[in-house]
Amino acid sequence: MFIVGVGFTPIGRWFNRSARDLFSEAMIKAIEDAGGLKPKALVVGNMASSTLMEQDSLAALMADYSGLRGIPAFKVEAACGSGGAAVYAGYSLVSSGLADVVAVGGVEKLTEKPTADTTHALALAADREYEVFYGTSFTGLNALITRLYMNKYGYTHEDLAYWALRMHEYASYNPYAQLRKKTSLEVILKSPVIADPIRLFDCSPIGDGAAVVILVRGEERAREVAKATGRDVLVEIAGVGVATDSVDLGSREDLLTLKSTRLASRQAYSMAGVDAGDIDYAEVHDAFHITGYLALEDLGFTGKGEAARVWREGRFVKGDKPEINFSGGLKARGHPVGATGVYQVAEVAMQIRGDYPGYKASDPEIGLAHNLGGVATYTSIVVLRRRR
Amino acid sequence: MFIVGVGFTPIGRWFNRSARDLFSEAMIKAIEDAGGLKPKALVVGNMASSTLMEQDSLAALMADYSGLRGIPAFKVEAACGSGGAAVYAGYSLVSSGLADVVAVGGVEKLTEKPTADTTHALALAADREYEVFYGTSFTGLNALITRLYMNKYGYTHEDLAYWALRMHEYASYNPYAQLRKKTSLEVILKSPVIADPIRLFDCSPIGDGAAVVILVRGEERAREVAKATGRDVLVEIAGVGVATDSVDLGSREDLLTLKSTRLASRQAYSMAGVDAGDIDYAEVHDAFHITGYLALEDLGFTGKGEAARVWREGRFVKGDKPEINFSGGLKARGHPVGATGVYQVAEVAMQIRGDYPGYKASDPEIGLAHNLGGVATYTSIVVLRRRR
Repeated sequence: MFIVGVGFTPIGRWFNRSARDLFSEAMIKAIEDAGGLKPKALVVGNMASSTLMEQDSLAALMADYSGLRGIPAFKVEAACGSGGAAVYAGYSLVSSGLADVVAVGGVEKLTEKPTADTTHALALAADREYEVFYGTSFTGLNALITRLYMNKYGYTHEDLAYWALRMHEYASYNPYAQLRKKTSLEVILKSPVIADPIRLFDCSPIGDGAAVVILVRGEERAREVAKATGRDVLVEIAGVGVATDSVDLGSREDLLTLKSTRLASRQAYSMAGVDAGDIDYAEVHDAFHITGYLALEDLGFTGKGEAARVWREGRFVKGDKPEINFSGGLKARGHPVGATGVYQVAEVAMQIRGDYPGYKASDPEIGLAHNLGGVATYTSIVVLRRRR
Repeated sequence: MFIVGVGFTPIGRWFNRSARDLFSEAMIKAIEDAGGLKPKALVVGNMASSTLMEQDSLAALMADYSGLRGIPAFKVEAACGSGGAAVYAGYSLVSSGLADVVAVGGVEKLTEKPTADTTHALALAADREYEVFYGTSFTGLNALITRLYMNKYGYTHEDLAYWALRMHEYASYNPYAQLRKKTSLEVILKSPVIADPIRLFDCSPIGDGAAVVILVRGEERAREVAKATGRDVLVEIAGVGVATDSVDLGSREDLLTLKSTRLASRQAYSMAGVDAGDIDYAEVHDAFHITGYLALEDLGFTGKGEAARVWREGRFVKGDKPEINFSGGLKARGHPVGATGVYQVAEVAMQIRGDYPGYKASDPEIGLAHNLGGVATYTSIVVLRRRR
């Protein structure tokens, strides 16, 4: 299966734009990018439309506003991992033969209501009865894990702050990023505490955006599109994986292992016939710095407890293998929740094609997108491979 | 592809039971019904968990509480058609080879909050910006269509009331139905107006429930389960279809045609190699009497404008072709929104197997389940076929 078109909007706090507006922009761009190929089915990843937009029937609405009224469509929810799960569902629609051209879109409009409402909506990713009821926020849960990581491996806040530093630098090159500005260690370390030990600059921002990728079955079809669009590179979906974990953290064996990431990545590696060492480029899910570090460990890119150290020492930058998050990551590209997983897949596909508009990877052949829902309650993995 | 296990809870206003409790009951029953076969992936249909339960991450939660922590899982939303769309997504997971045993579950807990909140949550199926904003409820939109149907074809309220009359009779035999009682024309005609001309007894009730079906790939696997469970009948999924329409009614060509039902049913008929005249038994989506009548017309079981007349004259009862809604339909079996489409598939499968616990169909060979989201914003169709 091949990705033949991608499209996304700049991420921001678009108080003057609706979800249908953002989504149709991304869809039109993706269809243009695919040489005008029209999707015959649509899967939409979204988390919070019911709570923040007061809108269900989301996939039909997005199909209609994209000029695709009538086609099979449904929304997929897997909390912050809705976009990645939607790609998995879209992959299966194509692979099963139910549709030969499928669009997978993600859209999130987080700025419809005051930020307190958004914080509440995001907390629905956690367990209502065992966690949220007691007053925790989603940042609060991640703060617990950050503290444990610091205590177990002897890290200071400064040790962890290098995540945000690097993400802001990359995002400064990304015209679609929400936070297009470099920052400094001093700013990060002095930013306000959100949930101790997590500070403002350790968190991804709240923003709106939409992204679409178009999938087709069969190399011949992909070559036709490549020819029509003047490209000499095909982007193949070589492997996919989705796995889950308990929603409440209290019933997990080990808070410092993203078990779903281990499971889903091994599924996808196995399907693609690769292992962690073969990945040239990856976009990983860094809703918080801690999530980014644990992802690097559980994807198999470094050992347990080592990620923050080797990151600070300069691993995963340009020229290393793998190169990580040149978009700026959720931290600085932004995190329009249900759209994020689709942005990642689109970004990795463009890095492989060589036409990514931001900080460029070193001509990657094998790329990976890693999207989490909740505190790794869900992981979805997509492995992409360059074909000539 | 084959359905090898089904399970569901009685539908009711279960103030003392949570969604995870209901869902795990349905899953345990389905796994037992499949001779202990354990699902390797899960798709959950649900509409209102975000608004009424304040819970996202629903599919992982349901997997965990069913003893399936870790498996690939995601939620599908297509408003009231979420269950049927989940079956479509589950079909594609199996058919694509991503998983060889897939559970599709639907769950809805509508009684978590006061009824006014539930009414609001259900209205999210309509267009927030062009309909709900102006104060309409979901019943209000259906009332407009009912009035148009009555005016165009010259029906009185009494003409339409025979839908509820028959549904209540069937439900009186169904141990899982929410409204297990016969009623009379007088009660229906004198029931309170909800949105003129729709009265209380023309509407499906608000209730909670969960249903699960287990799908496997390959006849050999299905035969193994049949042997282990002592059954001599296989239930094959012969065809599926999903289609959409605009969310807002104002931009449709004809309010009295469920266009998505026409599209989705033709997809499914074509895949199954049947036409409307071949269907022996069907469960159709009668959220209101009008929806049931229009469904019969747009599925091709009778001509446009005729359904209410031929229904009153006695068509679609036992011995006719097709037989319709012996469960009692959404009207009286109940309508736990995102679970309804899965109940329907489970019920049709049991009618084909011959072990349905309520009013029995006449040994059907080909069955159909018809599930709507919104005012036919979504239709999903599943055609089942008996195999010996």
